[in-house]
Amino acid sequence: HASSPSSSPRPLRLARLLLPFGLLLLVSLLVLHGRPPGTRPGQSGTDPAALFLSLSPGANASIAADLLTLTSGPHLAGTPGAAGVAAHVLSRLRAAGLRTLTREYAPLLSYRAHASLALLAADRSLLAHLSTDEPADPGRRVVRPYHAYAPSGAAVAEAVFVNLGREEDLAALDRLGVSLRGRVAVAVRGGGYRGGVVARAAGRGAVAVLIAGRADGGVERGTVLLGGPGDPLTPGWAAADGAERLGFDHEAVRRRFPTIPSMPVSADTASAIVRSLGGPALPAEWRAGLGLEGHAGGVGPGPTLVNFTYQEDRKMATIKDIFAVIKGREEPDRYVILGNHRDAWTYGAVDPNSGTAALLDVARRLGIMLRSGWTPRRTIILCSWDAEEFGMIGSTEWVEENLGDLQSKAVAYLNVDCAVQGMGLFAGSTPQLDKLLIDVTRQVKDPDVEGKTVHDTWSTMNGGINIERLARTDSDFAPFLHHAGIPCVDLYYGKEFPGYHTALDSYIWMEKHGDPLFLRHLAITEIWGLLALRLANDLVLPFDYHTYASQLQEHTNVLADRMNNSQSVSVINGFINDLSSAATEVQKEELKLLDIHDGRGLIRRRLLNDRLLLAERSFLHAEGLQGRTWYKHLMYSPPEDYESELSFFPGIADAISRRGNQSTRQRQAAVRQELWRVAMAIQRAANVLRGEFGAHNKPINFSVSMAP
Amino acid sequence: HASSPSSSPRPLRLARLLLPFGLLLLVSLLVLHGRPPGTRPGQSGTDPAALFLSLSPGANASIAADLLTLTSGPHLAGTPGAAGVAAHVLSRLRAAGLRTLTREYAPLLSYRAHASLALLAADRSLLAHLSTDEPADPGRRVVRPYHAYAPSGAAVAEAVFVNLGREEDLAALDRLGVSLRGRVAVAVRGGGYRGGVVARAAGRGAVAVLIAGRADGGVERGTVLLGGPGDPLTPGWAAADGAERLGFDHEAVRRRFPTIPSMPVSADTASAIVRSLGGPALPAEWRAGLGLEGHAGGVGPGPTLVNFTYQEDRKMATIKDIFAVIKGREEPDRYVILGNHRDAWTYGAVDPNSGTAALLDVARRLGIMLRSGWTPRRTIILCSWDAEEFGMIGSTEWVEENLGDLQSKAVAYLNVDCAVQGMGLFAGSTPQLDKLLIDVTRQVKDPDVEGKTVHDTWSTMNGGINIERLARTDSDFAPFLHHAGIPCVDLYYGKEFPGYHTALDSYIWMEKHGDPLFLRHLAITEIWGLLALRLANDLVLPFDYHTYASQLQEHTNVLADRMNNSQSVSVINGFINDLSSAATEVQKEELKLLDIHDGRGLIRRRLLNDRLLLAERSFLHAEGLQGRTWYKHLMYSPPEDYESELSFFPGIADAISRRGNQSTRQRQAAVRQELWRVAMAIQRAANVLRGEFGAHNKPINFSVSMAP
Repeated sequence: HASSPSSSPRPLRLARLLLPFGLLLLVSLLVLHGRPPGTRPGQSGTDPAALFLSLSPGANASIAADLLTLTSGPHLAGTPGAAGVAAHVLSRLRAAGLRTLTREYAPLLSYRAHASLALLAADRSLLAHLSTDEPADPGRRVVRPYHAYAPSGAAVAEAVFVNLGREEDLAALDRLGVSLRGRVAVAVRGGGYRGGVVARAAGRGAVAVLIAGRADGGVERGTVLLGGPGDPLTPGWAAADGAERLGFDHEAVRRRFPTIPSMPVSADTASAIVRSLGGPALPAEWRAGLGLEGHAGGVGPGPTLVNFTYQEDRKMATIKDIFAVIKGREEPDRYVILGNHRDAWTYGAVDPNSGTAALLDVARRLGIMLRSGWTPRRTIILCSWDAEEFGMIGSTEWVEENLGDLQSKAVAYLNVDCAVQGMGLFAGSTPQLDKLLIDVTRQVKDPDVEGKTVHDTWSTMNGGINIERLARTDSDFAPFLHHAGIPCVDLYYGKEFPGYHTALDSYIWMEKHGDPLFLRHLAITEIWGLLALRLANDLVLPFDYHTYASQLQEHTNVLADRMNNSQSVSVINGFINDLSSAATEVQKEELKLLDIHDGRGLIRRRLLNDRLLLAERSFLHAEGLQGRTWYKHLMYSPPEDYESELSFFPGIADAISRRGNQSTRQRQAAVRQELWRVAMAIQRAANVLRGEFGAHNKPINFSVSMAP
Repeated sequence: HASSPSSSPRPLRLARLLLPFGLLLLVSLLVLHGRPPGTRPGQSGTDPAALFLSLSPGANASIAADLLTLTSGPHLAGTPGAAGVAAHVLSRLRAAGLRTLTREYAPLLSYRAHASLALLAADRSLLAHLSTDEPADPGRRVVRPYHAYAPSGAAVAEAVFVNLGREEDLAALDRLGVSLRGRVAVAVRGGGYRGGVVARAAGRGAVAVLIAGRADGGVERGTVLLGGPGDPLTPGWAAADGAERLGFDHEAVRRRFPTIPSMPVSADTASAIVRSLGGPALPAEWRAGLGLEGHAGGVGPGPTLVNFTYQEDRKMATIKDIFAVIKGREEPDRYVILGNHRDAWTYGAVDPNSGTAALLDVARRLGIMLRSGWTPRRTIILCSWDAEEFGMIGSTEWVEENLGDLQSKAVAYLNVDCAVQGMGLFAGSTPQLDKLLIDVTRQVKDPDVEGKTVHDTWSTMNGGINIERLARTDSDFAPFLHHAGIPCVDLYYGKEFPGYHTALDSYIWMEKHGDPLFLRHLAITEIWGLLALRLANDLVLPFDYHTYASQLQEHTNVLADRMNNSQSVSVINGFINDLSSAATEVQKEELKLLDIHDGRGLIRRRLLNDRLLLAERSFLHAEGLQGRTWYKHLMYSPPEDYESELSFFPGIADAISRRGNQSTRQRQAAVRQELWRVAMAIQRAANVLRGEFGAHNKPINFSVSMAP
């Protein structure tokens, strides 16, 4: 794809826009009318997956057209620009023939009111005004760079360069005898969650934090909210109209916000500051971040000072979640949920509207399938979230509002945030869905390698298939998994992209670099759709708990290793075996059911599916993790320590990393209690899976006895 | 019933024992063989209720025989005496033809090792040794009186009479200028939960508490555990073999135990102490408790001293829960659970074995019904709990262990602790079961009034039918309702009885006073069984959420009244209306289903029943009540304050009664948040009941807006 659209003549662009729709129209007509009258796909044997895939030709072009429209202007949540994109999504869902719903909330959002930055000499005379703009957006078409929820503040203080601002960087500064107290920290991006960078610097006494963007002129916006997702004033319930809200002085609210102001700045701005610093010399490995290889300067503090003022505009704003619902014909009270957020920091070509375009194509195809007479066995819900960028707010409020319903009915939540960031399939999942995901990729053509399936390339490249676990809280699956205990999948092409949260996240970049032929978008759409169809149509839910058990065993082994093969970790093993044998019983029951086809079979299948459906809920601890009660998943919530290596058993990870006032004995006891809590959760899951009352009342012997 | 069994000659007694069984055998044979071959009751239309009731003739006599056996010796939990009664129950369940299971736990129990009491003069010379025995048990056949979990301790201190030891009594002492600090409090029983009496006295600085028994020589044993039911070392999980246990220094453990020793003493012992007191004169209304009407003495302190030593034997002991399971033929994964505890402080004739005998009769009848070819639609589980007297331990450990399973499958829990204490039916229930309970009593003969049904007498006596709400935590329904959110019923004949937890709770008392003809036992058995059969067999679960909504409205009105018609309370009303309209939709769906009889009807019924089943869970707040996270039910958990009048909305009650360090504004905000939490729970329940996704996304307007 050599030319870029901005250089093509207008009629050609118009044709390029119309042609895919024309193609699609043709294909749809063929699909709808090429079918013999009387046959109803889905009812009499036509595989819904085949039907779904047959609607691919030309879809890449319509996806591209959708993306162009969605990204035509900035659409930050709670701003006027958001309305047009919401309207577009709503109208495309309706055009697909789907029933739509919307739900509005009024959470606390945060915008930049005013910022200024200047470099001062040691005597406080002005050396230079520094730009707080994004070089890549000279026309200020998108919102000027800022951190959402950074508090208003001002500082005139010496600057200190903190490299990536990780714990190890701050420790290095300690060793150099450089204190952050009362100073402005200047960091390079890449040190993990930006809220964590700010919190760590604040913990060391810094008065403000500036985080540098990349050399290409992009500046990374983002939220710095702490302690979990969702509206800060309504933790655990929805920010609906008229809802009770906590006061700003409430402890649960205060601890969500950083205590010092911060802002993302351009690499140029950060470089200007750091180049002016004296003090201990820059460590060698700290130079690359700002391109300071040849530079002879230091890490600070000073002698120069930074004069930083920041005014936040913190206010409640209306956001809108949009839904399309396809009611299941046999089990309408079982939900297969697909979600993508719609709001963007700038144009959102990658993040998130590559996913939005994919969602709209899934909707288009399902609409066609419905018109041809097919209905899914279970209900499918497509969700377009708002305000994800502020902290997964649109999805979290909705999950909190519908918690009882979702916990008793949701089969799984399939998330696509950035559908395409680059090359190569990446996926995160709760383990019982691994097998399904892998199976589905065998049916999808690889977008980059001719004649191969996605499964082919996925299993041979980058060391083979490696499905991540979802302990991270960086997209809309977080409330579904960490709070509600619903199995989740998160899909994306390409590990990361340079324009993340910058003005460079535009259609042009996607067309040039991200996915010129939009075939990766196509692949994501197909994987997403096929996952949904399997979950919504399979007679028995395609969950594999043997995989879950073996993953938990891996985690346990890693943990045991970390704890120097502490005997206490082995308490978990017996319960994991129990989970495995429960999984075997499920398989046996499934086989038996193959032979029963009457009404009794329907009920027996329902009973079996209920066991499968509810097992994941058992991994929740009702009271939540200590000090972070919103997080309830004991296998896969994020650990308290943003830099922790443990991506599982968060309660145990927290107990290990927590030092504080405890004696060693107390800490060991706390770790043991968390171990036991995990063991009990696994036992609960095994019991629910097994289903039969009393069958689990076999005495379980332990080699470890815990004396009080 | 003029003669008592102890005076009848042996052969007559033997005949009396054998005759009922003979009668029963005859009746059973008639039932089994009088049926035409080929008809299967329950399958082809025979009403299971009619069959159940047809097995009543002679049952009162076999119930009496069972009670005699069960109460032949003391059977305190964790002691050798318990084994025989467990074996009897197990064998009777098996004899009934039911499948049985047992589950053992090893919780922390508490026994009396040593106690001594003496009255000293002001100069510490011995005035008199005081008895720590129970006058009604001169042979020391049962465990000597004590409070379970009272800590070891000793005190030589002035005594103070505290009347009932309620807050108002302690306030009266304050006004009299009498301090409890460093003194021994002597109380009369009747001041509410004995643990609360001890805690209040300890809060005022008392060093020990003695609680007087009744004039008839009975001394009331009991637990003084604080903060909720269940094993103190394993809060939230089961005290299974090998389970992790918290240390005694753990905060969650320490706060379960009272801080000062206490003991129940005879009225004589207490009287001897109080008669020796000087100080401000006894208030007139304080005299009746110990029969001190003519006495001219005071409330203390002193001049006499009490020398009290107490040695507790606190240790882990094995307890055993016993189950009988009747697997449902259509929905084996739906559980109707009946429970009664088996352990007793002494002989247990009323508490609890009147209920045990009833449970065994239910088992007998169900066994006969099974043999005649009937099976219930849903699974019925009969439970015989252990260690209830120590703090609902056997039931709580089991519920904690099976929480996931129970929350997804349990239809209802039907509790009978003391089946018969005296005259008149009393019942507590979650409101959706009220209607069913009332209906069932129309089918049961009144045990005391010829020609009337229980419903007849229940609705005309004592001001009419008054079903209590279950905020109290005094029997085994507590973990099911307060922790797991399962609908519950609690049944008993007679409000209370004099021999409670004393050696007077014997078969002789029951035969003489409690239920001479055992017809009240019969009535309880019938009500219990019919409830179970309706819940296990009705096509659609017989839950009525209109009643729930109207009860919640009553509670809200009472609360509004108490809060001087605060406008903020009205926020709940809209959600209650929502619950009501959801209940209406359920009724409509139920009507529609009457016309559908195929496999699709089966599934649709299942879907509707799932909505009904799960609605109660919505009333739980996952994180639990503040400071008492084990309690999760927002409508019906006990309030923190043992003396609170509010028997609903415990979170709101707690926020109102909590003073502490808060400003008025903070307290108002806390109350408002609890109001909102209740409102949200009701909304969740309405959503779950309504079932259809998106239908609830109607905007709800409030007249109250809550500014942050």
